[in-house]
Amino acid sequence: MSSALPVIILVEPQLAENVGMAARAMMNCGLSELRLVNPRENHVGDKAVAASSNAEEILYQARLYASTEEAVADLNFTLATTARHRDQTKSVLSAEYAANKMFSLGETGSRCGVLFGPERTGLTNHDICLADGIINIPLNPKHCSLNLSQAVLLIGYEIFKTRITQAEETLVTNHSVPAERGKVLKFCEYIESLMADCGNFKSDERRDKLIINLRNIFMRNALTEQELNTLYGVINHLNRR
Amino acid sequence: MSSALPVIILVEPQLAENVGMAARAMMNCGLSELRLVNPRENHVGDKAVAASSNAEEILYQARLYASTEEAVADLNFTLATTARHRDQTKSVLSAEYAANKMFSLGETGSRCGVLFGPERTGLTNHDICLADGIINIPLNPKHCSLNLSQAVLLIGYEIFKTRITQAEETLVTNHSVPAERGKVLKFCEYIESLMADCGNFKSDERRDKLIINLRNIFMRNALTEQELNTLYGVINHLNRR
Repeated sequence: MSSALPVIILVEPQLAENVGMAARAMMNCGLSELRLVNPRENHVGDKAVAASSNAEEILYQARLYASTEEAVADLNFTLATTARHRDQTKSVLSAEYAANKMFSLGETGSRCGVLFGPERTGLTNHDICLADGIINIPLNPKHCSLNLSQAVLLIGYEIFKTRITQAEETLVTNHSVPAERGKVLKFCEYIESLMADCGNFKSDERRDKLIINLRNIFMRNALTEQELNTLYGVINHLNRR
Repeated sequence: MSSALPVIILVEPQLAENVGMAARAMMNCGLSELRLVNPRENHVGDKAVAASSNAEEILYQARLYASTEEAVADLNFTLATTARHRDQTKSVLSAEYAANKMFSLGETGSRCGVLFGPERTGLTNHDICLADGIINIPLNPKHCSLNLSQAVLLIGYEIFKTRITQAEETLVTNHSVPAERGKVLKFCEYIESLMADCGNFKSDERRDKLIINLRNIFMRNALTEQELNTLYGVINHLNRR
């Protein structure tokens, strides 16, 4: 059971479509527990289900509450999403930090939740004062209005990132294998020999420069064996002509 | 001119609405340059403009291209977004790392771009081989299909984050100021004295425990001066009854 994952709480969502899209965003981010406080429209109707795009399971399992107070009652830590800083004394957490904090809390058995307000008005001050803090999603301050499902997506994305380790950059080579440096060098030497035959090296200095340039081009390229064969094919074809 | 910011390139987007929502996501993330390769619908028509939600400026300034090749021609570095790893030898970058890399390249004058494919099919292999690498958006592998504007939003969000410094957690106190420790201690001592009057401390050990608990509660709370006054008001009211 994924009880350590944060719960998404939509307070008085207006449109069923937005609830469905929020469920889709949750599914994208591996979240599963949705709570709804007084949704205006049917959250398991056709509109919501269609918008959820195969995440209807989250809609069917969503729990309904009559108030925000009841929706957060069994949680240990909740954060409110709001674009404006209200006139409240409140911790404001970056989305990334909030996700990490909820991850740590979840690891030690605390249940966390994130509150999202109605589309038009956002969370009320009475909702916000129930939360441990406010999540600030960093966005262009001149144009920071997000729709509900986009806000859920960005928070969910940060939560998902806390749970994975991801390489910064990986070369995917599929069926081929990275060529050994000796094979790349041999290829460079092959071109160098062809160039020498053509009488292209007018001076030792120019020759040396070309060799270094060519080797730099191909050495930094992380060529695979298959790609080396492709290059040999091209060079041989040109050489035969 | 914000020429250092990455360009968003939508290849053959199908729906005007999605182009509009992508423009909105760009505006959310402070991006401004949109390029469109053969959009199927009118990108400055009513549907696109309405969906852009006040980001129509980006739509009007968008440039049209007849091919992906032309759309990337003046750029120095491009990345392709695709959920599947195709049968190509290609660098795969995490979204965060890709954003940081484009930031660094932008700082040194390189122009970067991110390619997004058509809604239904995604980028073709011929589009992808034009890119320096692939961006991998980390999402639930069992349900990772994003709509176009959500993909633009997540990449834009990572790009926006590279350009800001954001505190992990800040206590926003608005009109009030954080209380000095001495004032919080004085408040604790005040409660302690009231408790002593009530004959509540049955043993020194219990008294000591209560003092430590109370001080821990209020010391870790980052109380403001205003909040301290509120608490004094409550205590005094209860004490008078």
